[in-house]
Amino acid sequence: MSGLDGLFTPRGVAVIGASRNPAKLGAVMARSLSTYDGPLALVNSRDPELHGSVEEAVDVLGAPIDLAVVCVPAPASADAVAEAAKAGATAALVCAGGFAEAGHPEHQQALADVVERYGIRLLGPNTSGFLVPSRKLTASFVPSAADVPAGGVAVVAASGGVNHAVSFLLAEAGYGVSVAVGLGNAADVDATDVLDYLLDDPATTAVALHIESVADGSRLAAAVARVSAAKPVVALVVGRNDVGEFAQSHTGALATSWRTTRGVLRQAGAVLVDGERQLVDAVGALSMTRLAPAADPGVGVVTAQAGPGLLLLDRLRGSEIRVPTLSDATQQRVAELLPPMTYQANPVDTGRPGPGFGSVVKAVGGDSDVDLVAVYALTEPDSLDLVSELSQLESVGPTVVGVGGSSVDVGVVRSGLHERGFAVGTSPAALAHAVRALVEDARLAHRRDAAGSAAPFVEVAAGRWDEDQAKSVLDALGIRTPVRVACDTAGEAHAALDRLGGPVAVKILDAAVLHKTEIGGVHLGIRGHGDLADALAKLGDRRVLVEAMAPSGVDLIVGARRDPVFGPVVLVGLGGTTAEALADVAVRAAPLSVAEASSMPDELLGRALLDGWRGGPVLDRSELAEVVRALGQVLLDAPHVDEIEINPLRLTRDGLIALDAVITGKEK
Amino acid sequence: MSGLDGLFTPRGVAVIGASRNPAKLGAVMARSLSTYDGPLALVNSRDPELHGSVEEAVDVLGAPIDLAVVCVPAPASADAVAEAAKAGATAALVCAGGFAEAGHPEHQQALADVVERYGIRLLGPNTSGFLVPSRKLTASFVPSAADVPAGGVAVVAASGGVNHAVSFLLAEAGYGVSVAVGLGNAADVDATDVLDYLLDDPATTAVALHIESVADGSRLAAAVARVSAAKPVVALVVGRNDVGEFAQSHTGALATSWRTTRGVLRQAGAVLVDGERQLVDAVGALSMTRLAPAADPGVGVVTAQAGPGLLLLDRLRGSEIRVPTLSDATQQRVAELLPPMTYQANPVDTGRPGPGFGSVVKAVGGDSDVDLVAVYALTEPDSLDLVSELSQLESVGPTVVGVGGSSVDVGVVRSGLHERGFAVGTSPAALAHAVRALVEDARLAHRRDAAGSAAPFVEVAAGRWDEDQAKSVLDALGIRTPVRVACDTAGEAHAALDRLGGPVAVKILDAAVLHKTEIGGVHLGIRGHGDLADALAKLGDRRVLVEAMAPSGVDLIVGARRDPVFGPVVLVGLGGTTAEALADVAVRAAPLSVAEASSMPDELLGRALLDGWRGGPVLDRSELAEVVRALGQVLLDAPHVDEIEINPLRLTRDGLIALDAVITGKEK
Repeated sequence: MSGLDGLFTPRGVAVIGASRNPAKLGAVMARSLSTYDGPLALVNSRDPELHGSVEEAVDVLGAPIDLAVVCVPAPASADAVAEAAKAGATAALVCAGGFAEAGHPEHQQALADVVERYGIRLLGPNTSGFLVPSRKLTASFVPSAADVPAGGVAVVAASGGVNHAVSFLLAEAGYGVSVAVGLGNAADVDATDVLDYLLDDPATTAVALHIESVADGSRLAAAVARVSAAKPVVALVVGRNDVGEFAQSHTGALATSWRTTRGVLRQAGAVLVDGERQLVDAVGALSMTRLAPAADPGVGVVTAQAGPGLLLLDRLRGSEIRVPTLSDATQQRVAELLPPMTYQANPVDTGRPGPGFGSVVKAVGGDSDVDLVAVYALTEPDSLDLVSELSQLESVGPTVVGVGGSSVDVGVVRSGLHERGFAVGTSPAALAHAVRALVEDARLAHRRDAAGSAAPFVEVAAGRWDEDQAKSVLDALGIRTPVRVACDTAGEAHAALDRLGGPVAVKILDAAVLHKTEIGGVHLGIRGHGDLADALAKLGDRRVLVEAMAPSGVDLIVGARRDPVFGPVVLVGLGGTTAEALADVAVRAAPLSVAEASSMPDELLGRALLDGWRGGPVLDRSELAEVVRALGQVLLDAPHVDEIEINPLRLTRDGLIALDAVITGKEK
Repeated sequence: MSGLDGLFTPRGVAVIGASRNPAKLGAVMARSLSTYDGPLALVNSRDPELHGSVEEAVDVLGAPIDLAVVCVPAPASADAVAEAAKAGATAALVCAGGFAEAGHPEHQQALADVVERYGIRLLGPNTSGFLVPSRKLTASFVPSAADVPAGGVAVVAASGGVNHAVSFLLAEAGYGVSVAVGLGNAADVDATDVLDYLLDDPATTAVALHIESVADGSRLAAAVARVSAAKPVVALVVGRNDVGEFAQSHTGALATSWRTTRGVLRQAGAVLVDGERQLVDAVGALSMTRLAPAADPGVGVVTAQAGPGLLLLDRLRGSEIRVPTLSDATQQRVAELLPPMTYQANPVDTGRPGPGFGSVVKAVGGDSDVDLVAVYALTEPDSLDLVSELSQLESVGPTVVGVGGSSVDVGVVRSGLHERGFAVGTSPAALAHAVRALVEDARLAHRRDAAGSAAPFVEVAAGRWDEDQAKSVLDALGIRTPVRVACDTAGEAHAALDRLGGPVAVKILDAAVLHKTEIGGVHLGIRGHGDLADALAKLGDRRVLVEAMAPSGVDLIVGARRDPVFGPVVLVGLGGTTAEALADVAVRAAPLSVAEASSMPDELLGRALLDGWRGGPVLDRSELAEVVRALGQVLLDAPHVDEIEINPLRLTRDGLIALDAVITGKEK
């Protein structure tokens, strides 16, 4: 029970601050709500023609008022909500601005106090409202929002404006909405609350989530995980670039780390998108079709025109979507259906299409390596009846369709296909986004299904850790480190060189020195006692670590730290300044499964370096996963540790080896 | 004169192979052309009710036939074109497939022979045709293409399918088309020919160019440069990913290097886009508005809803678009117009909009640092009449608008704004793409206007070049190299060490060894004669280069090579394997201006490394530009040189220095 039934399925609605001046918010809201198919009370104590109070309205209507839509200025809002609560309302919508986002936290606090006192659920303030089209409930100050049709997509937007913009785009794309909510300042009801409601809402088949900031990351991630296990979630996270100051003016909240939020939401099962059109393409498709969980679903492409098919293929390859060569048997079936001059290996180019197009789609969908068929065709009503061709495909697996053409033709084909359960995009890009969403959702579900064992528990003492101590922790975690000797004296260092043989690395050993290289505290490739003596002289009279040199390879950075919003998170990146300048890092919350951790390197821009670049070593994903999981576990188990980082963790032909390690934390 | 008037403004049209069987191509094409507002002849020698030949049709109609639309199978097409040419046609469209793309080059050669013999211009084969909506000329086998309205955008697409898909998307976005062409196999008419036609076509105000492959790169680049100087060109290049085999099956041509094609087209003045929807957003906006050339135009953002404004701002910042803080004077004017609770520095958030919205837009547009205003608003007919608010803005500079809302409301607002010359997108992403296109076009125009002096001429002898000789070429080009001594003997090497002081680099000096490091041919950091002797011993009895060591810095790779399609091209990338794995390289054709060469590093993903990363050195763009231009000039002047590369070219606090150089070419 999310407790939002009063908001989304109210038995009666009151507009507090209703007005008969059409320019006033109270009038616009009353007009929007006029289509509502339940009791509606217009309340304004200063207008004798309207109800003087919610209590009076309840008496007159003889029906309970569950939802109060509050259209009074910020300073008066809390009292209005309290009045409604006393009259029995269990939910309120406060649209006005002028709260935390505008430098008036006291008004927002007053609302929070009312929520606390009466247990009423409150949406807003500072939002343009919400829609439940199936109930003709348009609690929005954009009355034309009533034109958005009912359907399977729920929209949960940080911003009222984005909620409306996305709902309208969904309608434009032929999809309908179950519930669409703009959270505004989220003084009470937040994304997590709405997600919990949607989990049990039978009308919702997929969720579009728009995130500007996150207050409680773990709670949000858990809700996304619960929902995505039952129905797909697609997330658009704002703030890739520096927009912080404007964002804060908007909702009064600091922007959350874009990268971390994305990493954690994806881990929780949300398909990520980069913009509102892609959001619509993705969630629309997922509201109609969901693939079975699979590690890497194969996509068959059937196109009636080669050029758009090429645009589609280029995008799919760029999104790391697998478009497998069709089996000989499939190619043979396709060859029987098509003239010999077309390409038939996948993509299948039908040439100018006609009757039998559906049979080609069916043949491709029947290939054992094809989990999803993507079909593109220009609408040519004279030569191809796409709806009836595809309607014969019941025995075939999931299929999504792209159509181009005049808006009339596209409208006809699209509604025909939607009725039969096919998602439809109106360009190769839209189709590619739909395909990517379906594939990504199936991959995330597969990853979620792969249960992981717990990472090993290792006691990490409180205190300060020098490199030798930090590496001892790694040793205990089962992470390989070079053979090393901590030396208090020059004599010990020379003995260590004898023991290890050359070449060795010699480094300052001091927990207070975090950036050894930058102060000249590291000497590499020392082979003889002369060089060692030189190096020790330069390092001064200090403790040193003498360590065997590792073979060359590809350097990674792996770490775990405490995120202020999401708690313990783990990071994987490539070493080197270029990777650093690109902020090329994958992030997840800890704990995480082996499957989840194994997926991290595949997000890196420079991932090609990890897969045998120029004959180099190939990363064993599961070996890296165990390192990542172990570091995450340290932060979960040891509250006094703030951060643990291996930089570099070198990928060699013999596997991974930690060349340097830093642990920071409280000294107890 | 491009010689395509017979194709796009024919005095009469004949369909050869016209049919009365509605499923046949000849019937579909006849139906498409039935709306044409000039003489139309249906020709089929086997149908007594149609004209027996083009010649007969000319006689019967008493009018010339300029265009023959050929709807016969591939083997019969050349004869049909010849027949039309003999009857006076100056242009032909051949739609059928079955030519080079399907393994029948002989049929395509036959067409080429007819073109050669008769001088007729031929579009196709293997294309769905073209449209000239203003003349109701729909030479397409998609009859509904007649629904695409007339307007300012010309579409030049490699593929007939993409031509149609893009034209339909333009119509859907409220834009119209002047000419829309699918080139197909381009046996005769290619993109360059159409571009030359469009340069003189008064109806065309912007060009959408879709490229799959390029036969003659220099010719195409020159045509794009001619057109873009007069009207904007937006280019979508296919083939970022591995799509070669399917692409070849499509038009029979090998895919051109995606990166090089993009670099050269941009240099020629084309705005680049990543997909067909972005193409529509960009070219639609540019067909209505063009900014004055500017190095880096500033954009003012006015939004009626903060959330969509934030999506827009995030995208603009991610596209390196400048959104400057408004001047104090502008902020003061805006403050007088808006309630105090909104953000007003840029973006300007109007809060719930109403009358006076236009004045805010006008105030922002009047800021001295704003060259373009981007406006976003949900359509709220009750509170905001966007069309009349923006219609008062005559004295204000360029403005583009994003609107969200129900399709009815959006349609009304969009057509009202289009009539008044405002480009309109229907989502924050569409608006961002429009803004980016306008800004990029202005930047490219500014760069084109910056005339560059010729690069210096340096004689490069034929032969093989060892590192010392290659660096002597660099010295002559004015590119800094380390002090060095080429040594034939160990004695000379020791003398060189004395002369240069330590530390020095010692390297094998042999024109036959291109990858010295990989075979252990490079020893760095040698300070004393003992180390030098060790190094020389390891290198064996060979010539060596003894060279002063350069200070640390950021390594670049700069080179020039001969591209099979575009001729001499220059490349700039970052050093290191990560940059290499990302293929993070900027490409241009040589010769190029200082302004053009200076823009290259700004395209690199890792460009942050060049601008004082972590307190490091800052790249002087013009210093790099002179290096790039000089290398390009070598390839232009010395036909025996195949490639010249500096790797690394190190950015230090003292500027750029070439640490290694390779020249390869013919030995005479």
